[in-house]
Amino acid sequence: MQALPGFRDFYPLDMAKRNYLFSTLRRVVLSYGFVEVDGPTLEGGDLYRKKGGDELAEQLYQFTDKGGREVAMRPEMTLTVARMAARSERHYRKPMKWFSIGSFFRYERQQRGRLREFSQLNCDLIGEASPAADAELLALVIDCLRAFGFGPRDFVVRLSNRMAWLRFCRGKGIRVEQIEGFLQEVDKMDRYPAGEISKKFAKFGTSLQAVRDFVESKDSTYFSAVLDDLSARGLSEYVEIDLGIVRGLLYYTGIVFEVFDRRKCLRAIAGGGRYDQLVSAVSSSRVMLPAIGFGIGDVVLGKLIEAVPVAVEKMRVALESRPGCEVFVVIAEENRRRQALQVVQLLREGGKSVDFSLGVVRIEKQFRHAQQLGARHIVVVGREWPQVKLQRSAFHEVSVCPYEKLAEHLKTEHSFAFQ
Amino acid sequence: MQALPGFRDFYPLDMAKRNYLFSTLRRVVLSYGFVEVDGPTLEGGDLYRKKGGDELAEQLYQFTDKGGREVAMRPEMTLTVARMAARSERHYRKPMKWFSIGSFFRYERQQRGRLREFSQLNCDLIGEASPAADAELLALVIDCLRAFGFGPRDFVVRLSNRMAWLRFCRGKGIRVEQIEGFLQEVDKMDRYPAGEISKKFAKFGTSLQAVRDFVESKDSTYFSAVLDDLSARGLSEYVEIDLGIVRGLLYYTGIVFEVFDRRKCLRAIAGGGRYDQLVSAVSSSRVMLPAIGFGIGDVVLGKLIEAVPVAVEKMRVALESRPGCEVFVVIAEENRRRQALQVVQLLREGGKSVDFSLGVVRIEKQFRHAQQLGARHIVVVGREWPQVKLQRSAFHEVSVCPYEKLAEHLKTEHSFAFQ
Repeated sequence: MQALPGFRDFYPLDMAKRNYLFSTLRRVVLSYGFVEVDGPTLEGGDLYRKKGGDELAEQLYQFTDKGGREVAMRPEMTLTVARMAARSERHYRKPMKWFSIGSFFRYERQQRGRLREFSQLNCDLIGEASPAADAELLALVIDCLRAFGFGPRDFVVRLSNRMAWLRFCRGKGIRVEQIEGFLQEVDKMDRYPAGEISKKFAKFGTSLQAVRDFVESKDSTYFSAVLDDLSARGLSEYVEIDLGIVRGLLYYTGIVFEVFDRRKCLRAIAGGGRYDQLVSAVSSSRVMLPAIGFGIGDVVLGKLIEAVPVAVEKMRVALESRPGCEVFVVIAEENRRRQALQVVQLLREGGKSVDFSLGVVRIEKQFRHAQQLGARHIVVVGREWPQVKLQRSAFHEVSVCPYEKLAEHLKTEHSFAFQ
Repeated sequence: MQALPGFRDFYPLDMAKRNYLFSTLRRVVLSYGFVEVDGPTLEGGDLYRKKGGDELAEQLYQFTDKGGREVAMRPEMTLTVARMAARSERHYRKPMKWFSIGSFFRYERQQRGRLREFSQLNCDLIGEASPAADAELLALVIDCLRAFGFGPRDFVVRLSNRMAWLRFCRGKGIRVEQIEGFLQEVDKMDRYPAGEISKKFAKFGTSLQAVRDFVESKDSTYFSAVLDDLSARGLSEYVEIDLGIVRGLLYYTGIVFEVFDRRKCLRAIAGGGRYDQLVSAVSSSRVMLPAIGFGIGDVVLGKLIEAVPVAVEKMRVALESRPGCEVFVVIAEENRRRQALQVVQLLREGGKSVDFSLGVVRIEKQFRHAQQLGARHIVVVGREWPQVKLQRSAFHEVSVCPYEKLAEHLKTEHSFAFQ
């Protein structure tokens, strides 16, 4: 029996890698003064259908629960964050800097290794509308990736702005109620042949050429303050203006961005933007709170690591330096197992990671077990241990302490430094 | 807009408490040499319906996905662990000691604060059938709770054994195919009036009195090796034989246990048992692997902490000693914001947690912000800072370093110890 298609089992090494990703990200977001929050895995389905956009709704894991409620497994975090902020913002100092790490679900077609459950870091900066906030969040996403060893030749943040697109739409006479549909076509324009997309744009009273010219213009009106801030931080080389980025989600109102690998081999590594109207839209009291956020998922990030040798090496070093078994207790005489258990308990209560053989096994096998676990120290309980063999094992430089000495040592030193 | 009934929003303080629970548990399980794994949130529905038992099936969040598969949000972890072990056990040394921390879902009736999504630590010891393995796991659950400051007057592990019940059933002539139904009645016997439960037992050819006599017998045949092991570890006072424990889940085959608060005010804090047939049952190659495991959820554990002053105090100290804002950068002259941003970036790259005002705000307000964040140090950028006012603030004992000195300090010392 296997996991469902698009879902993953995390065996110890997979899990260690996932923990490496998120502990690295966590360290960076904490250095930016973000605090951790979380929301429920299941939300009312309305939240996504009304505010998310078509693609999100199509991919929703939704069903009717046993109480007759329309519910959905969360496909993203921003709507939950907006809901939480709307409900309790009065208790928190602005800006709120919130991050979360959790599982998300999208019923994607099974192609190119797309997954249906993924883990994601989300960061949201709520209650500050200035470009300084945009820059703070962009600096954060850049530093998140730099923490894995990636440099400006590995990834780039492509920066756009919904406001620029609104001005384009006004200039072309696209009506307000059409803008949403138009932007969704722009978002998908590279997926279809030119002829097909031209026809779609014609319906909105514009042309593929006009859209392309606009994207090529790289109009920096909406970006100068943000770019100036990032330059002061020394992060300019990680950002490029690309008006071709519009983001599929409905709720964005200002700056939007996606992070791509420079080799253009992967899907977006991260993405986000400003959503100044969303908190108000999900609030019963219509509280207005400008906000900006982004998400980084584990799947594409993991692939980028695999593609960059420096990042692979950094991960390898981190995985190898994980704390493993500190002390392995060898039971040399089975009739002294009770004493061994006392030692095990004492060491663990002292905070050590301790292992021993649960079954009755030969002493040689116990030593092999200790070696396989990478145990740093061994404690041999009983006198009958094969000192000669030990000298040929990986522990030959470890001075082994028989039980009697150990007990004495514990009593006098109150220390667990057995070597 | 609120979370669905039975689901929780974790605001910063809620999240800090949840992190305290699981970082404490994680520390203990690592000291026992367990390694982390995880499975998918969604599984094929069959997994639970066939092997879980009626109550689990009734509470299942199940639905048909967009591909026509019957799926279920995981209500527990043991079946996933068994599936994972069955599939890949050949790659791992036995016994496998696996733990996981994740979210689980049960559609429970909304009463007595029962939740529909909860977080749970699961520990499973796979590939070792000896009582030594049972004792290792019981010692682990006890040490997990002791880590919160609970003592033998706060909780007790109630220990039972399905084998004892099988012998009872044989003695009473209960047929093999009836045993499952019978044990489910025993599991629920305290929830119904004596008359009702007597009738139910009569159908199986036994009586309420016979069941009660059996429970009262405290027959220790099946427990002596385990109790002896726990006594060597000094943990006897945390365990009691209670044959009234049978556990609702179908897959248990040997020792079963539940942990209760001594005041008997709460539901079970933790529960588990031996499931020697389960890995084989979910394995295509019928690989036999004896196993034992338990789960501790966050909800009841949180309530027990609230009820025990020592545990409350321990949590309070842990929450207060969390690392917060280390350096707050005060921008005393707005035209030097670029310099301030450089300092912020430099400090963060050095691993410090740094905050500053994104908006243009008065210097007094910036100091207040720093105080509210509990910043340990401040760095003032600009000459125009109100030294007199500062002396009346919480930072009056902090020697403040103006920007010029700071830059110098950075160059010469390569240290970030600004005070």
